[in-house]
Amino acid sequence: MEMDRDALNAFLDRDFAEVAHMFRVETAQDNALTLRLLPSPAHLRPGGTVSGPTLFALADVAIYLTILSMIGPKALTVTTNAGMDFMRKPAAGVDLLCETRLLKLGRVLAVGDALIFAEGDARPVARASMTYSIPPEG
Amino acid sequence: MEMDRDALNAFLDRDFAEVAHMFRVETAQDNALTLRLLPSPAHLRPGGTVSGPTLFALADVAIYLTILSMIGPKALTVTTNAGMDFMRKPAAGVDLLCETRLLKLGRVLAVGDALIFAEGDARPVARASMTYSIPPEG
Amino acid sequence: MEMDRDALNAFLDRDFAEVAHMFRVETAQDNALTLRLLPSPAHLRPGGTVSGPTLFALADVAIYLTILSMIGPKALTVTTNAGMDFMRKPAAGVDLLCETRLLKLGRVLAVGDALIFAEGDARPVARASMTYSIPPEG
Amino acid sequence: MEMDRDALNAFLDRDFAEVAHMFRVETAQDNALTLRLLPSPAHLRPGGTVSGPTLFALADVAIYLTILSMIGPKALTVTTNAGMDFMRKPAAGVDLLCETRLLKLGRVLAVGDALIFAEGDARPVARASMTYSIPPEG
Repeated sequence: MEMDRDALNAFLDRDFAEVAHMFRVETAQDNALTLRLLPSPAHLRPGGTVSGPTLFALADVAIYLTILSMIGPKALTVTTNAGMDFMRKPAAGVDLLCETRLLKLGRVLAVGDALIFAEGDARPVARASMTYSIPPEG
Repeated sequence: MEMDRDALNAFLDRDFAEVAHMFRVETAQDNALTLRLLPSPAHLRPGGTVSGPTLFALADVAIYLTILSMIGPKALTVTTNAGMDFMRKPAAGVDLLCETRLLKLGRVLAVGDALIFAEGDARPVARASMTYSIPPEG
Repeated sequence: MEMDRDALNAFLDRDFAEVAHMFRVETAQDNALTLRLLPSPAHLRPGGTVSGPTLFALADVAIYLTILSMIGPKALTVTTNAGMDFMRKPAAGVDLLCETRLLKLGRVLAVGDALIFAEGDARPVARASMTYSIPPEG
Repeated sequence: MEMDRDALNAFLDRDFAEVAHMFRVETAQDNALTLRLLPSPAHLRPGGTVSGPTLFALADVAIYLTILSMIGPKALTVTTNAGMDFMRKPAAGVDLLCETRLLKLGRVLAVGDALIFAEGDARPVARASMTYSIPPEG
């Protein structure tokens, strides 16, 4: 593991300043982590549920940070494919947690998946799988 | 066609006030429309490219409005599945246009796909396909 | 749980005779099962690896049977969406195992995902997620 | 264009002998082609409809051949991601046609999508999008 929880949060603050206020790494281990979506009025839809693009951002940042935790801070890694299933409306006023797994870490492609939960509820709100292209060494 | 371009833009302004400033329907015809992402500093990443969640939102709103153009304003219609391929980095400072096709409009499920282009460039920036669940008549 | 391992294998033999010789349920528990792809020259590609359509069939049948294990034999349930990542070439001459999870079992839609492994290797060969439409009670 | 319709069919016969009897390229042009699924009892489900894995194989072979039509016969190109929506049950006894578009042809990744139709019906049976990894020059 190249970056632990504190290193990942420091990377968010430094290199992703525009979204760092939204996310916080809770736990990180080999090939897996949990990312918390910090509550904010900006990503709520009427009725208090979290918007689809915010769920997408949560999964994308979470799987991306899982890759970086294993290979170090390569900010040029880019998402090439994303698939999501939106399964339940998250309850209003409850934090969302995204739990990731890194499934493949190749030389040019990495693949991970994630489940998003409302804190305290074991039924997943959404499922995501994402592929990232890793740039060649400079 | 239940809602034309002006009716769709009025629906955005009234029922999606929180994102209406981001999007504008350019053209709408049977089972297809073009949605413009209005430029804003908020959805840019460093280097001036548009973020993944913003591309997701653009495709999601565009296909959703394509369904509503055919069935009228049923605001409860929800995204259940999304797939996206991110293929090129959009040029900075150029508007993005999302061109949709409605592929299935069933009683409970609707499916559409979309290509996103940087204005003036024929090579697609991203591809999206989305499924929506249509609520039963009340 | 409506159908256990033996009931699922009997259902395969009776209602899916054309593919029953390909698959065997190894274990089944609430919302999860393991399906083995039985070796056969017919689904090999040159070099001895299993073809993409065979991996697709393995995941599709496995998640479908996971749904049936919970709701009973409703043969009209149909796949509406599938997403797969093909991550490693499976070794020749080794059985493939598909491990499923049921993520949502709603009134009209069910969602599950799966990982496919070559027996004895912890690195997944492929990942799949699938949605099924459940017909209304007759 | 590196390979026209006849060159693609000859490639199928020579390098994909195990599936060549299933498929025939009807037309091929820059970045697009139409592939016909030849009728066969082997890929029918009870009731006469075509099975999901056969639809998957049809889309996969069609998009793969579209890439080869542009870059020549590189048999090592492999599918890394697939997404499909199954939208209508195809009528029994009617040939299926798959119409492809190549959306990106990069140095290491190619992306295409496809619609599958029952011959003579303008409503698509299925939609597919696929990514392929192109091996580096040897």
